[in-house]
Amino acid sequence: MDDLTLHEDPRSGNCYKIKLTAALLGLPLAIRQYDILKGETRTPEFLDGINANGRIPVLQIGEKFLPESNAACWYLADGSALIPRDRFEQADMLRWMFFEQYSHEPNIATMRFWLYFIGEANLSPQQKAQMMAKRIAGCEALALMDAHLAGNDWFVGKAASLADIALFAYTHVAEQGGFGLGDYPAVRRWLERVSALPKFVAMD
Amino acid sequence: MDDLTLHEDPRSGNCYKIKLTAALLGLPLAIRQYDILKGETRTPEFLDGINANGRIPVLQIGEKFLPESNAACWYLADGSALIPRDRFEQADMLRWMFFEQYSHEPNIATMRFWLYFIGEANLSPQQKAQMMAKRIAGCEALALMDAHLAGNDWFVGKAASLADIALFAYTHVAEQGGFGLGDYPAVRRWLERVSALPKFVAMD
Repeated sequence: MDDLTLHEDPRSGNCYKIKLTAALLGLPLAIRQYDILKGETRTPEFLDGINANGRIPVLQIGEKFLPESNAACWYLADGSALIPRDRFEQADMLRWMFFEQYSHEPNIATMRFWLYFIGEANLSPQQKAQMMAKRIAGCEALALMDAHLAGNDWFVGKAASLADIALFAYTHVAEQGGFGLGDYPAVRRWLERVSALPKFVAMD
Repeated sequence: MDDLTLHEDPRSGNCYKIKLTAALLGLPLAIRQYDILKGETRTPEFLDGINANGRIPVLQIGEKFLPESNAACWYLADGSALIPRDRFEQADMLRWMFFEQYSHEPNIATMRFWLYFIGEANLSPQQKAQMMAKRIAGCEALALMDAHLAGNDWFVGKAASLADIALFAYTHVAEQGGFGLGDYPAVRRWLERVSALPKFVAMD
């Protein structure tokens, strides 16, 4: 495989997904860090050379660049046990990964970013006006996960897959976004199962 | 393949993606319609039997249920020319599909839903407070697409893929959300290319 470099901010759960996937698979990953709070992913150099969308993570594969955390995980895990081969299970794994980006991350990760890194006192009126809706939607996402995990050890099939990695990233730090996990016992047990995977690495 | 049934609202671009994928592949798809404006996807029957997330589309495959539009497209297109086999291109296709759900749909589709179906006069103060941010982010998504398509006929590689289908769904009706396409000539040419694909079907 070509050399792999992750363009990342270590505070980002989206970046952590890729590091966790690489670690579980034993793949070496060079790291290039940026400070998103200082706008380091919005410079002309970054926009022209790394990602025109101005976001991290970006997985660099040789001379090619792959934005979007879950797509990068897919690239790394291609052909591995982290992607089920069964047609329905593979699509169902992607289902949870799209759920993560649509219903989970914009609520739980954004609330964490606002409260833990920016600080509630520094939010704009527009951001503050969105907090209640994000709290509710984040709790709905956690409740949906809890209901699923009450009857299943993993999101898809009988083993850990990229769906678990994608959803673990921001769920395990959800309390930093004001989401207590006390009401979600199946989620808490699943977090422990993910943390106990061989070669697991913690977030920085 | 098991019998396929799409649980949908025909006004939804996310549902249309699945119908377009099935049409391009010549796959028969039974249709079961719901009116999301009447809350028909929030009934106990729907939440218990079809999708606990209360959303359409859901692709039913025999007795199994697959939510999330892009995951359903993946299931249908498995093994077809709509999914590139090259490792990087396949991940890059998913990259654009995650971009669609994270950076495109929540802005362009939501604005269309609010303005075209609910009506601006009926929006809540919280929804109105988000409109400016969604307008800006939607324009940024269209500009990013336009820049990419200025040098490429398709989002990935040299042929149409699920990335084109996913992004076509709400882009071709973006004006219903107040997003004029006059500033995006490469997007307009690409819309024509997608519409000219063999077996293409229009949205209802």
